[in-house]
Amino acid sequence: MSVTLSATLAANEEIERRRRAGERVLHLAFGEAGLPVHPALRERLAAASGLNGYGPVAGAPALREAAAGYWSRRGLPTDPGLVVCGPGSKPLLYGLLLAIGGDIVLPMPSWVSYAAQTELAGARSLLVPTPPGEGGVPDPERVAAAVRHARTQGRDVRSLLVTLPDNPTGTLAGASTIRRIAEVARELDLTIISDEIYRDLVHSPATGFLSPADVAPERTVITSGLSKSLALGGWRIGVARLPSPLLRDRLLAVASEIWSSPAAPVQQAAAYAYTEPPELVERVARSRELHGAVARAVYERFVRAGVRVDEPQGGFYLYPDFTGLELDVASSADLAAHLLDRHGVGVLPGHAFGDDPAALRVRVATSLLYGETTRLRLAALDAPDPLELPWISASLDDLSEALTGLCATRRATRSRVHVPLVTAPATG
Amino acid sequence: MSVTLSATLAANEEIERRRRAGERVLHLAFGEAGLPVHPALRERLAAASGLNGYGPVAGAPALREAAAGYWSRRGLPTDPGLVVCGPGSKPLLYGLLLAIGGDIVLPMPSWVSYAAQTELAGARSLLVPTPPGEGGVPDPERVAAAVRHARTQGRDVRSLLVTLPDNPTGTLAGASTIRRIAEVARELDLTIISDEIYRDLVHSPATGFLSPADVAPERTVITSGLSKSLALGGWRIGVARLPSPLLRDRLLAVASEIWSSPAAPVQQAAAYAYTEPPELVERVARSRELHGAVARAVYERFVRAGVRVDEPQGGFYLYPDFTGLELDVASSADLAAHLLDRHGVGVLPGHAFGDDPAALRVRVATSLLYGETTRLRLAALDAPDPLELPWISASLDDLSEALTGLCATRRATRSRVHVPLVTAPATG
Repeated sequence: MSVTLSATLAANEEIERRRRAGERVLHLAFGEAGLPVHPALRERLAAASGLNGYGPVAGAPALREAAAGYWSRRGLPTDPGLVVCGPGSKPLLYGLLLAIGGDIVLPMPSWVSYAAQTELAGARSLLVPTPPGEGGVPDPERVAAAVRHARTQGRDVRSLLVTLPDNPTGTLAGASTIRRIAEVARELDLTIISDEIYRDLVHSPATGFLSPADVAPERTVITSGLSKSLALGGWRIGVARLPSPLLRDRLLAVASEIWSSPAAPVQQAAAYAYTEPPELVERVARSRELHGAVARAVYERFVRAGVRVDEPQGGFYLYPDFTGLELDVASSADLAAHLLDRHGVGVLPGHAFGDDPAALRVRVATSLLYGETTRLRLAALDAPDPLELPWISASLDDLSEALTGLCATRRATRSRVHVPLVTAPATG
Repeated sequence: MSVTLSATLAANEEIERRRRAGERVLHLAFGEAGLPVHPALRERLAAASGLNGYGPVAGAPALREAAAGYWSRRGLPTDPGLVVCGPGSKPLLYGLLLAIGGDIVLPMPSWVSYAAQTELAGARSLLVPTPPGEGGVPDPERVAAAVRHARTQGRDVRSLLVTLPDNPTGTLAGASTIRRIAEVARELDLTIISDEIYRDLVHSPATGFLSPADVAPERTVITSGLSKSLALGGWRIGVARLPSPLLRDRLLAVASEIWSSPAAPVQQAAAYAYTEPPELVERVARSRELHGAVARAVYERFVRAGVRVDEPQGGFYLYPDFTGLELDVASSADLAAHLLDRHGVGVLPGHAFGDDPAALRVRVATSLLYGETTRLRLAALDAPDPLELPWISASLDDLSEALTGLCATRRATRSRVHVPLVTAPATG
């Protein structure tokens, strides 16, 4: 087993280290929502500070009921008895790998921890590329072929995973792809794990959202949490919606031996959040608009610099592709290192997401551009046009400058390569 | 992989269910500390409710420094850089199994989750009986023999675990046993995991406490947490003291993929707790006295009933042995079921702790006897003699009555067995 620190967390720690050392770094490497806790949630946490019992492994009844209501309001009637809460959706995903067992099909690229968790669970992942513009879902026809082939090799493939909307690409797979992947899962008898932690951050209501649980409810687990929509990453709370008592019981068995339960006071605040009271619905709506506006602005900067990138549809990520720009780098790792060291821009290499190491793709997270303090972040949430706020527009300009710098490198590289060596000047 | 809900958590949920259904059950099955949160910790949690970043995987610097101070004050100078925090000591223990790899030697009996976690981690445990009266440490000579034998069979044994003081037996291994197990670990090149979560609840300061980290610092990991000493089980906070940067890095790698970090507001409250301010030192001292007084009272009830049991030295557990009482039960599971169904006493069968299923031993947890409400529990903490409080003395009497009832069963059983069947009356 090879074990290394999660790429996002490692990159974040490295960038924080450089910043503490006084280096100026544009932090586009970490998937933290970058917004403050809503005061109503702070109050609920404080009010629940007397709760110190372990409570049920599945989570407090109030939280399970509230989460069931959350899904029911989204067209997915949910039995609170089939909801399992955990200290983040990350441990729930890991627990599901153990509870389901066997190998898993992952989209390529996909969030850094899926493949790492699979390895920790003693299983293997089958990486299947996503269709163009539809990140987060492995191409259904390729899945069918890959699973059939793997099974002829004696591999025990039991599940496939989708991310809706997607991290790292920021795109959302369309309804027909979801219907097709659900069909394939049914044909191959695969459990679908649908990571929908960014669901409430689909930028435009016009985009629509179809979950595999809508079309294959008998085999779909949904995982979600409050880390992204309400910026509660550091509170560690996730929820899972199970398709059957059998899988729920297996997940609870794993949970009871690995983590017991999420922090009890956090569960109470989360129970409140999942009832979706007006002030939190409003907060999520404003967050969604802010994420969308800034992600689009970053998208435009990349497009202007001539970098290929899909338009973001949800969350706060972009996945630009620098192929064809004739840069002097041979891998996504080189490109990310180059961007950090030469241009002060921290991003994650596509390789970390299981992508081809030689493909010049990186993941850009836009959520740490809203400001360094709670005051600035609240101002960003409240602004009619957040792009006009000086600290956000300055960051966007820094990004444009870095991309221009990269183009200058490219031009320099190109001339260095194309000019015959004998004519090169001797001076530095 | 067989996965079932952790025996303690399952038993707790079953007893809670019976109580909700109106059944009278003396709850002696669950290792929750049964005391309220100290107000200073509630305040710290509330004050930190604005913290929502993931923070470092190893835990907030303030928490790592405070935990290092905690160990340093106990004669174990500690580098904060070698402290790793997790959402409970349970996930830390699981993470260590993955980080260390290979098979592990466990004491028999030992806490229910060690063996279950080992299985989830894809490894196997070697259960080695503990010396008489020294629960929590596998007998050193037997460890040497078992590991050597396992290695000749090709097994890759890399670690051994001790619990100081012990759950389930409530006893504490003495210094010479600790020195000998450390020696054996060194000879066999085993990492020692020392679960010291009950360390601050050793009842009498005269007992003394030697950690394997005192004698084999190069190979000992200590795990601990605030679940027991400060009754913060439901807050999910644990700490580990690593012997080397190598093992720390491997643990961090696992942690970053499975749980990320403990809840940020909880980390701040825990950082305060580990500085050991006077009001919390006082709280731990009073808790220790209460646990000791009630555990000893329960011990005396068992002794009076003629049940063999070691005198408790730390924590809030006893491990009575009903062998020789001629009960009409053939296993610890039968005995636990009998105690619950016939006498309203909830305990855990020794089998759940890896003990011989046929041995009539059960684990008795005494910490849920302090009262059902915060008011009663605080009164128990404050009482000069908690045994005189009516609700505690009533529970102790209930226990005595149950044990008397058990003896009556025994006599009835004995007469049924010994009296020739032909003379049995036809009535009733």
